[in-house]
Amino acid sequence: MSGEGTPRRPALGVCYYPEHWPEERWATDAAMMREAGITVVRIGEFAWSRLEPAPGDLRLDWLRRAIETLEAAGLEIVLGTPTACPPKWLVDRSPDMLAVDREGRPRGFGARRHYCFSHPGYRDESARIVTVLAKAFGKHPALVAWQVDNEYGCHDTVLSYSAAARDGFRAWCAARYGTIDALNRAWGNVFWSMEYRAFDEIELPNLTVTEANPAQELAFRRYASEAVVVFNRRQVEIIRRLSPGRDVLHNFMGGFTDFDHFALSTDLDVATWDSYPLGHLERELRDEGRQRRYLRVGDPDFQAFHHDLYRACGRGRWWVMEQQPGAVNWAPHNPAPAPGAIRLWAQEAFAAGAEVVSFFRWRQAPFGQEQMHEALLLPDGRPNESYEVAASLCRELAALGPPGPPVPAEVALAFDYESAWAWEIQPQGRGFRYLDLCLGFYRALRRLGLAVDIVPARAEAVDGYRLVLLPGLFAEDPALAAALADGDQRVLLGPRSGSKTGEFQIPEVLPPGAFRSLIPLTVLRVESLPPFERLGIAGRGPASHFTLWREFVVAEAGVEVVDRTADGGIALAARGRAAYLAGLPSPAYALEIVERLARDAGLAPRRLPEGIRVRDLGPLRYVFNYGAAAQDVSDLLAGHDPVVGEAHLEPCGVVIGARKVQDA
Amino acid sequence: MSGEGTPRRPALGVCYYPEHWPEERWATDAAMMREAGITVVRIGEFAWSRLEPAPGDLRLDWLRRAIETLEAAGLEIVLGTPTACPPKWLVDRSPDMLAVDREGRPRGFGARRHYCFSHPGYRDESARIVTVLAKAFGKHPALVAWQVDNEYGCHDTVLSYSAAARDGFRAWCAARYGTIDALNRAWGNVFWSMEYRAFDEIELPNLTVTEANPAQELAFRRYASEAVVVFNRRQVEIIRRLSPGRDVLHNFMGGFTDFDHFALSTDLDVATWDSYPLGHLERELRDEGRQRRYLRVGDPDFQAFHHDLYRACGRGRWWVMEQQPGAVNWAPHNPAPAPGAIRLWAQEAFAAGAEVVSFFRWRQAPFGQEQMHEALLLPDGRPNESYEVAASLCRELAALGPPGPPVPAEVALAFDYESAWAWEIQPQGRGFRYLDLCLGFYRALRRLGLAVDIVPARAEAVDGYRLVLLPGLFAEDPALAAALADGDQRVLLGPRSGSKTGEFQIPEVLPPGAFRSLIPLTVLRVESLPPFERLGIAGRGPASHFTLWREFVVAEAGVEVVDRTADGGIALAARGRAAYLAGLPSPAYALEIVERLARDAGLAPRRLPEGIRVRDLGPLRYVFNYGAAAQDVSDLLAGHDPVVGEAHLEPCGVVIGARKVQDA
Amino acid sequence: MSGEGTPRRPALGVCYYPEHWPEERWATDAAMMREAGITVVRIGEFAWSRLEPAPGDLRLDWLRRAIETLEAAGLEIVLGTPTACPPKWLVDRSPDMLAVDREGRPRGFGARRHYCFSHPGYRDESARIVTVLAKAFGKHPALVAWQVDNEYGCHDTVLSYSAAARDGFRAWCAARYGTIDALNRAWGNVFWSMEYRAFDEIELPNLTVTEANPAQELAFRRYASEAVVVFNRRQVEIIRRLSPGRDVLHNFMGGFTDFDHFALSTDLDVATWDSYPLGHLERELRDEGRQRRYLRVGDPDFQAFHHDLYRACGRGRWWVMEQQPGAVNWAPHNPAPAPGAIRLWAQEAFAAGAEVVSFFRWRQAPFGQEQMHEALLLPDGRPNESYEVAASLCRELAALGPPGPPVPAEVALAFDYESAWAWEIQPQGRGFRYLDLCLGFYRALRRLGLAVDIVPARAEAVDGYRLVLLPGLFAEDPALAAALADGDQRVLLGPRSGSKTGEFQIPEVLPPGAFRSLIPLTVLRVESLPPFERLGIAGRGPASHFTLWREFVVAEAGVEVVDRTADGGIALAARGRAAYLAGLPSPAYALEIVERLARDAGLAPRRLPEGIRVRDLGPLRYVFNYGAAAQDVSDLLAGHDPVVGEAHLEPCGVVIGARKVQDA
Repeated sequence: MSGEGTPRRPALGVCYYPEHWPEERWATDAAMMREAGITVVRIGEFAWSRLEPAPGDLRLDWLRRAIETLEAAGLEIVLGTPTACPPKWLVDRSPDMLAVDREGRPRGFGARRHYCFSHPGYRDESARIVTVLAKAFGKHPALVAWQVDNEYGCHDTVLSYSAAARDGFRAWCAARYGTIDALNRAWGNVFWSMEYRAFDEIELPNLTVTEANPAQELAFRRYASEAVVVFNRRQVEIIRRLSPGRDVLHNFMGGFTDFDHFALSTDLDVATWDSYPLGHLERELRDEGRQRRYLRVGDPDFQAFHHDLYRACGRGRWWVMEQQPGAVNWAPHNPAPAPGAIRLWAQEAFAAGAEVVSFFRWRQAPFGQEQMHEALLLPDGRPNESYEVAASLCRELAALGPPGPPVPAEVALAFDYESAWAWEIQPQGRGFRYLDLCLGFYRALRRLGLAVDIVPARAEAVDGYRLVLLPGLFAEDPALAAALADGDQRVLLGPRSGSKTGEFQIPEVLPPGAFRSLIPLTVLRVESLPPFERLGIAGRGPASHFTLWREFVVAEAGVEVVDRTADGGIALAARGRAAYLAGLPSPAYALEIVERLARDAGLAPRRLPEGIRVRDLGPLRYVFNYGAAAQDVSDLLAGHDPVVGEAHLEPCGVVIGARKVQDA
Repeated sequence: MSGEGTPRRPALGVCYYPEHWPEERWATDAAMMREAGITVVRIGEFAWSRLEPAPGDLRLDWLRRAIETLEAAGLEIVLGTPTACPPKWLVDRSPDMLAVDREGRPRGFGARRHYCFSHPGYRDESARIVTVLAKAFGKHPALVAWQVDNEYGCHDTVLSYSAAARDGFRAWCAARYGTIDALNRAWGNVFWSMEYRAFDEIELPNLTVTEANPAQELAFRRYASEAVVVFNRRQVEIIRRLSPGRDVLHNFMGGFTDFDHFALSTDLDVATWDSYPLGHLERELRDEGRQRRYLRVGDPDFQAFHHDLYRACGRGRWWVMEQQPGAVNWAPHNPAPAPGAIRLWAQEAFAAGAEVVSFFRWRQAPFGQEQMHEALLLPDGRPNESYEVAASLCRELAALGPPGPPVPAEVALAFDYESAWAWEIQPQGRGFRYLDLCLGFYRALRRLGLAVDIVPARAEAVDGYRLVLLPGLFAEDPALAAALADGDQRVLLGPRSGSKTGEFQIPEVLPPGAFRSLIPLTVLRVESLPPFERLGIAGRGPASHFTLWREFVVAEAGVEVVDRTADGGIALAARGRAAYLAGLPSPAYALEIVERLARDAGLAPRRLPEGIRVRDLGPLRYVFNYGAAAQDVSDLLAGHDPVVGEAHLEPCGVVIGARKVQDA
Repeated sequence: MSGEGTPRRPALGVCYYPEHWPEERWATDAAMMREAGITVVRIGEFAWSRLEPAPGDLRLDWLRRAIETLEAAGLEIVLGTPTACPPKWLVDRSPDMLAVDREGRPRGFGARRHYCFSHPGYRDESARIVTVLAKAFGKHPALVAWQVDNEYGCHDTVLSYSAAARDGFRAWCAARYGTIDALNRAWGNVFWSMEYRAFDEIELPNLTVTEANPAQELAFRRYASEAVVVFNRRQVEIIRRLSPGRDVLHNFMGGFTDFDHFALSTDLDVATWDSYPLGHLERELRDEGRQRRYLRVGDPDFQAFHHDLYRACGRGRWWVMEQQPGAVNWAPHNPAPAPGAIRLWAQEAFAAGAEVVSFFRWRQAPFGQEQMHEALLLPDGRPNESYEVAASLCRELAALGPPGPPVPAEVALAFDYESAWAWEIQPQGRGFRYLDLCLGFYRALRRLGLAVDIVPARAEAVDGYRLVLLPGLFAEDPALAAALADGDQRVLLGPRSGSKTGEFQIPEVLPPGAFRSLIPLTVLRVESLPPFERLGIAGRGPASHFTLWREFVVAEAGVEVVDRTADGGIALAARGRAAYLAGLPSPAYALEIVERLARDAGLAPRRLPEGIRVRDLGPLRYVFNYGAAAQDVSDLLAGHDPVVGEAHLEPCGVVIGARKVQDA
């Protein structure tokens, strides 16, 4: 698990809070973990008030004893830095360390994440406590990894409108733009007389009379994202210095785009994320149809998308740091997972290359905000059902042995955090969401049985794929355009791709800006449509249409019009390896488009049955059933011998086949 | 009506504002009241600016003359203390007396209830003005009762986040927990490093980054409720000292649970409530189906529930202090009552034992916030339709004569204000409301023709009943459990009963905690479900199901599984006299459960027709028709001779039968 | 175009921002404008930061050069005063010049309209910059008109809760009421002890515990409206002094009633409004049925209503200052206009007597908040489709020649801004909107092919009409009642007409107050109904009913009951020339009522086909097709010779016929 070696894989882990339980219990817990087959345990995040109950009064002994207890049971430790929960005394000493919300109200003590990333004093305090911990435990043999802070941005904490943030933003602007005239030009501040005379006149874009300048909004989003990266890096540097050889990781959140996970991950060894399929289903997806269909099993693609995303963030190394073990407490409604769902989720993660799947949490807390969040143990310390599921999973994993090398994906889907901010700032049509747009294409790819890499939208990231999708990539990027023009990938652009410059202006050559070098067409105008309006695609069935968004495109000579809208506009155009899609496709139309592109790219897409998904890992083929009915998946296992499960796949079923030798 | 004697009953009253009208009109008003048969008149609340137009400038003469005018017409006076409306000069002298809302904004002058219960200065000012009034009028022969303040908590005023509230809360915590360590343990503050080092570090649970600790929320709710009780008690003590022999009462609001009405009522002689059936229908019930069905007659059970609740609060003595007389002004929509509805409401109240039903208000104000609120008189001083209704009611009451002794109920439904707070703090599933849960069981009992006592959830309150329902009672209670174990009542527990300790932690033995002594089973896990999901009950019809909430229960030996969910879980379990319900029942299922329990308890439930309700009072049987169609209710009147109305009951009809002598 | 002569009509104009583009481009733009046939160009509003980049550092040369460039192309200039966008340095010097929102938060710099109308310092600064501009350009020969500020009230900026507004309101109260006792009586402050002892005790009606006194709310709305008028007048007076002979105008917003446009217009020469049919359709009308039907063409009556309204405000002289040229950026969804819709809109405006229809804007900005707002030119400077539409329109207008004299309308619909405030303050039923009520009657009149004047609700404004509608006119008005009693107009009153005094009290004689002199009946009570409830009209079809609102009316002798509600109440009553409507009519019932009244008034209503609308201007008859299907409108053109278009009218079609000589 250490940064120096190769981690044993796959492994199960668990999140544990020794400070919540009597010390006498610790050894029992450790023994029960081992008995289930769990080998990795995360501790320490949120414990600042116990590590330093009063200023300078450091109490590290209990943590040392906890580590030793766990170590004695053969467990490997991931130590969390406690900076997500500064203690009350620290807040009282620096009340201005609190974040300020968009309405101008300080976000006070009494829960967690009560700090502003921009506050220099809190950055120093964070560095101080991390230094203390890294000195104390950094070279402990049981320590295999550090988790820096916890779920950056959770509870909408990336954007703070505090005085510290304002000062930080001003300095950031000065560094980025050099002169105030350059900033005024970049933002187009001549519009509505928004011009500044000096950097210290700049205001934050909240509490304006109507919406602020989108360029300023984007700049502030960039600043705020970088503030998270800088905050994180300061801890990472301390850890690297004082705790050599240990992996450094952070646990990101699903469906969360307020800061750039790619950028932050460059400072990490491993990217991890917190996967709560049922909570995400209701809260992140907001699609009652899917919620009805997948109430207790979760969306079949949401987790998979994030697995692929964080594999990219971690440059191949990634974990699920928190895995839902039962009903949770934070979604509007919190159903229990279907029988088999927890195993299904874990196996999908391992099939996607996870090194560790760690359950949150070990034992249900009888107190505090998460007392209704299930755990592997009941609040009374007895095993919950999920404890048995975890134990069974460990046995299954042991039987499978170490995984083979990953099978390279031939399709890349670019995911770009700045684009998420851009379209949040300027949806232009209520309901336009970048994540939904990308998820829509991801679903289509996955329904077609194609392996996908999620990649950052950079020239160097798209090399080697047969098909690259860049939907909704907001900013034109000459380097990326050039790389794609020079390469041999098929490329799908649109809608909205390249419709802005990096400073949130419309490109001089009009959208798709620099991407016109790939396909010479121009988006002259756009329209957004209310939910009831469906713009049909000529010659296709009623399920194929544009919703919410459509562009009026003029194509130059040599561009083929592949599809037209029912009113005669260009829906899909292509030239050579490049295609441009001029609207937001319905799921059926997205499937048709991707299927065609994949075929053109020499891939072999095949439409999987509803609810069935497939992944290859080394010689193993995993088939999953997220649907409500049993399915025979023999055809998907052709050329494979089942090693786990069988081709008749019950709901929540997983079958794993090993590639027959003659096929290898 | 005095606290010393037995009030003449039943009586009609009215709320009157002499300060709104020319003094020349007063005698006319008094005469018109008497002519209608009204005998009780409430005055004085809201009149502070006329009683003391400037600091210390007391002007009591006009009130004395008003009282004398009313007295001369033979009317009995209820005098309101004016503390719900402090005058502007008082607010200007102590701006920090204002409450502060959850968002941190002072709630300013310009309407009513603009004060914080915690503010010591305002408590003193309230005591001062009440002392003045009690000295001046406390022994006036026409004065029969005092109303303290008006509708405590109206407009969401129980919870204030002011500095005064924070200081009061800190002191309350110190008194309750003794040491800060005890508080930290009680609240589980080790979670997320929320530990305090001293009581003066404690913050109020608003403007936190995400939800505050539920234990702290509950503590703050308790504190806030007690602040109301303390505020009220201070006035009561003054009144008792200076105005002996007069009843002291307060007018509570329907559907309102922000403070503990049982606790406050211990300081009162009579509990009263303000009954607005049509306003409540839309605003409190939020059920469009019921709103369509009962648009102009009001919910058939909502008022009845409150009648029974306030009869309990008043230990048998209760009034309707404000009765809707026509369309009101404060619901989203304000329809006119159906012909007959006003009489129906009043008779239902008298059947439930009300001493007085008092209309709000005498004459419609042509100015101010309530100018669209109807009254017995039109704004021009002529009788409105409801004046004639009131007069007719008085004649009907006179003909009926004094009521007989109440018929003791054999079913008790526990209603617990802390449980309402607990599930508001932690619904766990959006839409879970304690009041709805209790109302659901109440409806079922009433549909079955059973008389119900609403009781506080205390050991001493459940004695003597054949059936006790404790749905959703949040905190385990060993004393109550022991009382029930020792008694001979049938008991229904669940869902959620006993699922917390009194400090909002999960009990060590898991839910239902101490109530496991009644029925040995354990709730291991729970789930909440979105509105579209219905969890059927095996072997029952499609209308019988759980919605929104279900528990996973493990029963020990000796427990009978009465019903199972369609997926095989325990729905209803029983052992001996105790039963446990593991979910939120649909109305049809609630009816089936209650019917079964009532039969087992030796009661005689019978399903009443839709819209028909029945009550017994002494030898009288009242039958009400809230439905849209006429009904023949002869069977319900078997053994009774109609003395008012007839068995063919039109919509809004009331028939009253006297028990035949041979049946007595 | 000058105030001294007769403007050339009709003309097309455009809004232009030379400061957004390189100076080298200006001549090209001017030439392209002329080539299209555009003759009027608005510039300068929003340019303060370029006119005065630092305090006192005036830079007028660029504007002079821009004017000269436009003049050289033969264009006439409308110069906007830049006061809607004070520069940052001005805000930094007087932070208290910012408006404060209802929640108490300052509304900061970073967009536009960041000032409080009540702030004396900002009034002075506005006067200063306008003086500078008027001195510099007031007598420039190309300057034909001034636009004062821009879209007063946009972004909810009329109501400010700042200290400046509070002080201004106190002074206004002192001037209006004379003594604090008079104010207390006028507002009914005895209610809830809201009495003040002095004017400087008065608070603004925000952040009260529950709703404030409606009389105070109305007074504050009046004050705020007058503050806009005063702010505007100060600029107008400077302009009149320094720039004689130029028209002074302002561009009002559609569907916007926060200040009194009639009152402000008395200081203007021309009233103009900003017409965005597709944006209004979704945002102002909130009617999904109409949105589906008219998605890309806009509501058939909303623009027409405003044309007639601003013709009244401008005493005959009015423009469309901003005309939607394509998709916009500010509605929840922003569809593209249907082919032909832009021409349809412009011709409807000219048919209603517009002197100028000016497109917003010339060239789409690639930066700033409105970068997604289409324009006549694309962001790259090439013509957009709408440029060709504009050019074609100019040719069409030229062929038509100058318009004849307006045809006087015989129907007047009173529109009263105070009534809009009154019913916003006291809807009594959620969803009751005064504008909707008036629009409902306007639609009925227009469906019947009747020409309508919108008029202020004043005695002198209703003279000379055959039919006057006064729906929802909140305040009784003895002078208006007398004028109508003395005249010979048919009059429709109700619902809610005359139901208050001017100080927001219920009239002593009850509603309709002074209007009882027209028809002797009394509204005793009212009710508001939820959306699902429909109160049928006896003897009429199911589409004819009351919704949301109904009154209980008692009529005196001599009043004819024309219609009754299904439950027997009075729906429509009449005596002589006056009728009273006792509820909110469904569209079908409104049509029936208006048709009957029009016939009684000797008019010739005829039901136009769905989507077809008609207007006469001089000898010309315009017929418009807003519907989705083609229509033959030959019968509407009887007696006319088509000069533009033909009787077979396609969707978005316009046909213009000239009255045959024998018919003249």
